[in-house]
Amino acid sequence: MIRSVYYTNHHIIPQTNLSIEEIHRALQDPEGLLWVCLSAPTEEELQTILGNLFHFHPLAIEDCTSHGYQVSKIDEFRDYLFIVMHALPSGKFWEISEPIEVDIFLGKNYVVSVTHESYVSPIETVWKHLEKDERLITRGSDFLCHAILDHLVDDYLPVLDEIDEQIEFLEDQVLQSPTPDVLSKTLEMKHALMSMRRLVAPQREIMNRLSRDEFPMIDQQSKIYFRDIYDHLVRLQDLSESLRDIVTGILDIYLNSTSLRLNEIMKALTIVSTIFLPLSFVAGVYGMNFIHMPELGWRYGYLMVWVIFFLIASGMILFFKKRNWF
Amino acid sequence: MIRSVYYTNHHIIPQTNLSIEEIHRALQDPEGLLWVCLSAPTEEELQTILGNLFHFHPLAIEDCTSHGYQVSKIDEFRDYLFIVMHALPSGKFWEISEPIEVDIFLGKNYVVSVTHESYVSPIETVWKHLEKDERLITRGSDFLCHAILDHLVDDYLPVLDEIDEQIEFLEDQVLQSPTPDVLSKTLEMKHALMSMRRLVAPQREIMNRLSRDEFPMIDQQSKIYFRDIYDHLVRLQDLSESLRDIVTGILDIYLNSTSLRLNEIMKALTIVSTIFLPLSFVAGVYGMNFIHMPELGWRYGYLMVWVIFFLIASGMILFFKKRNWF
Amino acid sequence: MIRSVYYTNHHIIPQTNLSIEEIHRALQDPEGLLWVCLSAPTEEELQTILGNLFHFHPLAIEDCTSHGYQVSKIDEFRDYLFIVMHALPSGKFWEISEPIEVDIFLGKNYVVSVTHESYVSPIETVWKHLEKDERLITRGSDFLCHAILDHLVDDYLPVLDEIDEQIEFLEDQVLQSPTPDVLSKTLEMKHALMSMRRLVAPQREIMNRLSRDEFPMIDQQSKIYFRDIYDHLVRLQDLSESLRDIVTGILDIYLNSTSLRLNEIMKALTIVSTIFLPLSFVAGVYGMNFIHMPELGWRYGYLMVWVIFFLIASGMILFFKKRNWF
Amino acid sequence: MIRSVYYTNHHIIPQTNLSIEEIHRALQDPEGLLWVCLSAPTEEELQTILGNLFHFHPLAIEDCTSHGYQVSKIDEFRDYLFIVMHALPSGKFWEISEPIEVDIFLGKNYVVSVTHESYVSPIETVWKHLEKDERLITRGSDFLCHAILDHLVDDYLPVLDEIDEQIEFLEDQVLQSPTPDVLSKTLEMKHALMSMRRLVAPQREIMNRLSRDEFPMIDQQSKIYFRDIYDHLVRLQDLSESLRDIVTGILDIYLNSTSLRLNEIMKALTIVSTIFLPLSFVAGVYGMNFIHMPELGWRYGYLMVWVIFFLIASGMILFFKKRNWF
Amino acid sequence: MIRSVYYTNHHIIPQTNLSIEEIHRALQDPEGLLWVCLSAPTEEELQTILGNLFHFHPLAIEDCTSHGYQVSKIDEFRDYLFIVMHALPSGKFWEISEPIEVDIFLGKNYVVSVTHESYVSPIETVWKHLEKDERLITRGSDFLCHAILDHLVDDYLPVLDEIDEQIEFLEDQVLQSPTPDVLSKTLEMKHALMSMRRLVAPQREIMNRLSRDEFPMIDQQSKIYFRDIYDHLVRLQDLSESLRDIVTGILDIYLNSTSLRLNEIMKALTIVSTIFLPLSFVAGVYGMNFIHMPELGWRYGYLMVWVIFFLIASGMILFFKKRNWF
Repeated sequence: MIRSVYYTNHHIIPQTNLSIEEIHRALQDPEGLLWVCLSAPTEEELQTILGNLFHFHPLAIEDCTSHGYQVSKIDEFRDYLFIVMHALPSGKFWEISEPIEVDIFLGKNYVVSVTHESYVSPIETVWKHLEKDERLITRGSDFLCHAILDHLVDDYLPVLDEIDEQIEFLEDQVLQSPTPDVLSKTLEMKHALMSMRRLVAPQREIMNRLSRDEFPMIDQQSKIYFRDIYDHLVRLQDLSESLRDIVTGILDIYLNSTSLRLNEIMKALTIVSTIFLPLSFVAGVYGMNFIHMPELGWRYGYLMVWVIFFLIASGMILFFKKRNWF
Repeated sequence: MIRSVYYTNHHIIPQTNLSIEEIHRALQDPEGLLWVCLSAPTEEELQTILGNLFHFHPLAIEDCTSHGYQVSKIDEFRDYLFIVMHALPSGKFWEISEPIEVDIFLGKNYVVSVTHESYVSPIETVWKHLEKDERLITRGSDFLCHAILDHLVDDYLPVLDEIDEQIEFLEDQVLQSPTPDVLSKTLEMKHALMSMRRLVAPQREIMNRLSRDEFPMIDQQSKIYFRDIYDHLVRLQDLSESLRDIVTGILDIYLNSTSLRLNEIMKALTIVSTIFLPLSFVAGVYGMNFIHMPELGWRYGYLMVWVIFFLIASGMILFFKKRNWF
Repeated sequence: MIRSVYYTNHHIIPQTNLSIEEIHRALQDPEGLLWVCLSAPTEEELQTILGNLFHFHPLAIEDCTSHGYQVSKIDEFRDYLFIVMHALPSGKFWEISEPIEVDIFLGKNYVVSVTHESYVSPIETVWKHLEKDERLITRGSDFLCHAILDHLVDDYLPVLDEIDEQIEFLEDQVLQSPTPDVLSKTLEMKHALMSMRRLVAPQREIMNRLSRDEFPMIDQQSKIYFRDIYDHLVRLQDLSESLRDIVTGILDIYLNSTSLRLNEIMKALTIVSTIFLPLSFVAGVYGMNFIHMPELGWRYGYLMVWVIFFLIASGMILFFKKRNWF
Repeated sequence: MIRSVYYTNHHIIPQTNLSIEEIHRALQDPEGLLWVCLSAPTEEELQTILGNLFHFHPLAIEDCTSHGYQVSKIDEFRDYLFIVMHALPSGKFWEISEPIEVDIFLGKNYVVSVTHESYVSPIETVWKHLEKDERLITRGSDFLCHAILDHLVDDYLPVLDEIDEQIEFLEDQVLQSPTPDVLSKTLEMKHALMSMRRLVAPQREIMNRLSRDEFPMIDQQSKIYFRDIYDHLVRLQDLSESLRDIVTGILDIYLNSTSLRLNEIMKALTIVSTIFLPLSFVAGVYGMNFIHMPELGWRYGYLMVWVIFFLIASGMILFFKKRNWF
Repeated sequence: MIRSVYYTNHHIIPQTNLSIEEIHRALQDPEGLLWVCLSAPTEEELQTILGNLFHFHPLAIEDCTSHGYQVSKIDEFRDYLFIVMHALPSGKFWEISEPIEVDIFLGKNYVVSVTHESYVSPIETVWKHLEKDERLITRGSDFLCHAILDHLVDDYLPVLDEIDEQIEFLEDQVLQSPTPDVLSKTLEMKHALMSMRRLVAPQREIMNRLSRDEFPMIDQQSKIYFRDIYDHLVRLQDLSESLRDIVTGILDIYLNSTSLRLNEIMKALTIVSTIFLPLSFVAGVYGMNFIHMPELGWRYGYLMVWVIFFLIASGMILFFKKRNWF
């Protein structure tokens, strides 16, 4: 799907859905602002718009058409920047590892955005805001680009919040009932946090470059906006580092609880065994069939044996008490 | 709450609680020093002071109004610096992870401080010192800003001292009675130290920049004061690194003690079992009901069995002694 | 085997398999493009071509002749670059540690490639493409060199995909049946990933230099092509980092499953022991041969003993139920 | 205690214990060399000398008066350098964590040293050498400062040697008798090594700066002397890294020995149990009181049972032998 | 022992074993090449040659005379470089930690080498090659110095190969019979690899500087030779990293095998106990002496008990089979 919007000083209302010729004409106007938004385009549409109309570099176009996983990056060409970012599909942490690639070409007077999916939240949000927020069309292509990237990065926080919630839940769980399920969920969270870090780090670097380097298509005053996104990403990284610490703590407690449980089990076994093995031995002694066993004939022999049983058992229990085994 | 203080060469006593107009006029005076201190201000107050009066950048104002967690940072604008620092609420280590954001705008002839809480210790301390210590109002905005940051950083040390105390207590505990409670407290300390590190590191970087970079609102001679705060933060980092080493040592001892305890338990079980299982077997043998069992009729058969019991038991005990199991 | 191809503006069809003299003449033509491709050459051929004809530096020639393991690198000489890269032999991950060295000399108007094996996939692919893709011969030596390196790096991805597949399989396995076999396979994967990282890192650095530094034999416009290979290698590194995280998770689950199994075994032992040891003791008591044992003569003595047996057993089972041992 | 020494070309013998006025006059002489050595000075003495006489910066004086822990550092002022270093009190490793702060002010024609303790080995050593080694007073303040720092750093090596000795002793111990005592001593050594590293790293950095940066009070030729101290510190760091490797190895062996011991214990228990439990069962069978038990009446029934006992026991032992349990 | 060789254009044959005066004269000749080789020299010889004749810096001479451990380094003086490298004594890995220091002074027209041992392989090899390989004397002091360093670094590879062999042997061992001996040998290998890394890293840095920095005594063309040694050292580092991965894998397998063995032992114990404890209980029941026990008088009571024994035993075995305990 190809959508476009064109704003120029000569018109009061921005034009939408321009024809190829209109786009071509709009490009000649250095004062206007053109946004071409390609959502899940066909191979042919991509070639027509990016190749024939805008004459972008074949390698950049190839990056837009290929479906494999890309690392976020920024490429500088003479007249435009090519930015690859990654949006998160929705508020589910387990999809962090399947982010949606958002490709943006940023020129002096245009923005071209390309996504493989037809609905990508930050793109749609900015598109809807176009009517309400006139800053988006009057403050130049760099501000429009910033708006898209800002919404894109804003979508990361709710995901991190959800992970945070899950981790807090696991933190409680691990103290109450450290089941293997807790382990695998904790490792899943750790994995999600590491994916998050790998997504955030290169995007932070991109924002750093956009807010520091000299690019002709970015105004000096606009840099502070990219700096703001940079700060967001630093905060995300900081938060995910904190969460990773907690996850490590959960793993430590979990592993320790496994061996503590083993100690508990062994204590129970040891207490029962060390009490009843001697008792059984004594009972076994007086179950022997020797003809000459004086005790067997004693009047209070049987009573005496019970006294012996009692002494052994209470002796053992006292011993364990002293060693704090109860 | 809005408080303000204005000092100028034309007056002997500094003015306090200026009206909006007075603040406006004070700003025009390049020789004066104005401090506007916003404590838990309303959204409207923030907008009036920061936006309408000082014309700070919208993004900086947004950072002041937003309540989410921020990483400490410094933003350079043409006429002023925007500094985000974090104060600690009180001397309790478990609140490290909930620091209080302190936002400071530092201009050539003014300081504007913003906090969401109505009482923030370093701000109040400096406010009170204004009357006593005249250096605060005569040596320029950079010195005043330094004073606030210095008190802010000074509040970290008692917290670290408390953590230190707790860790020393845990170090003793882990050798005497390594309960799971010790583990979870130790992990809590580790967590607090890591939060500390994450708070200190970016603030150290801010002080580094303030003491090195060229900012028009900071005098060459004042840089040494920020360098001093930088040294404080380096010391804090160094101390928390030392404490982290000790915490790691405590964890190692704890985990080892768990398996040592298991060894102790297993030794007790093994000693009792390996002594009484053979004895019980012997008693079982002479409890059999075979008609032809010569030993049963012997005169000293029963005595002989006790001798066998004694030999087996003492043999086993000697064996364990030799293996150092007692 | 020595193959060569020479393209110049004066001829329509490129010449192949030139004689030594023709190569010598081709070298004088600054506008032409010469590719000399040495596959598994003899020591003598190497000396003739590299030493006598091209006059490359003795140390670079030595690097081409030596058979030991080399780290990928780039050496800059006055007129040419000497690049050592590593191709993967085929899609088998276990051969990552035995990569094939590909040496390339890149001059202004020539490319010389040297490999010890007679069939090296990226070289052969480019050789075959020479006829179809005329860009390879018309766009200069840097583009031809880029084509070889691009195919070389492309061969890494299928290997990583295979490792990915294996790791996913192991991830399922470790939850179902954590045998020692799973451990050794997982460690093998970890090892392969680390070898991958060690192969990719220096090659990434080479691409970085080729796309940034100023080399006279690389056009300004061609740099973007090397940047593209650089991006590929960054992606490979990123992917292998992700896989390493998963491998670490598998190891954690595996090691935990070993101790969980031990807990299971100990529980079974403890339950059986703590139920039957007391029962056996009771049975042993009434197997004693005392003359005066009133219970033995009771009418319902035997029944009573079974009631005692039942009470002890069910008590124990209730105790274990309460402790969640089933 | 305040000591001072002043050397100038006009006198043959250096003057000692100058009055305040003499110090003041000595300072005016750009050709002379003045060393003021403050050992455990009172607050007042510090203020008089450092503040009133030398006019050092208040922050530097504050660093000298404060008693808390400082990280080693170097501060550059216009006319002098302020260096904070740490000496070790004696050859006992357990005091690494309580180093003695040595503050040095290095000017063009003077050195001022401040220590809180009255006897600090490197200071005293250099003081004593003043008479013997005339280079100390004739080659300028930078050489004198180097001499103090050199002796200070030289005191680290014997401590590291002692740690080395202890670690070698622990290495033998851990193989012979891995008691918990070995663990806690090993952790203590690890701790000492980490303290050492934290002491050495910043001091190394100071020496690096002194030997590289341009300071007006350090001659070009004197830099090599600070470089020499730098090399010493690099060596110390390298040595302590080596020792840390060995300590890690000791910990690995210790932890493994704990679980090996558990295996030994469990083997003993298992062997005894698996032999005697079946034997006891057989004995129990023939202890039953059934009226119709043909074996009980057999002529060689009792003998047969002993044969069964022997077969079971030897079968078990063979089984364990095959599994290498002995 | 002092050996020397002097080559100049005026003579056809190089002079050897020059007197002090001849050395002094040779030094004046900017076109000649002088190599003074001190092997295990006396303190006096060192002072005469290095101090009185060459006037090297006292600190460099001190480094040559001191016998303690040094880290490899390079010091730049005005007229010469002072290089400290480390040779390996022989092909035994366990001597990595006792390398032989080789000190080299490299001037424009001379090389002075100092070693504490009388026979140091790289020095002797180059000395012998002097006659055969005339490049060594005709291409300047930098080439001669390179030759010594090249041989020195070449001696590292066989040691690493031996470690490699040992590690492969341990890799097989750990799977077949993971004895404590394997652990301590593996840790020894890990230790050797870490020593190797600590030796190689600073030497690599020296080569990096020699091949990059501008030193007047090193020709532009000679730099590539030091670059070649640099590449060798990079390769050594890469190889030892690979080996360290394998060592870590061996340790993981070893530690896991210890707990797997424990599981095996506990399984055996549990199987025997859980089968025979219930059986013994049943036998004990019918060994009781109650007068009223109807089963005892049954015709087929004894047979029935054996049926019960059989049912319990086979039930348990089935249970264990189902749990895959065999």
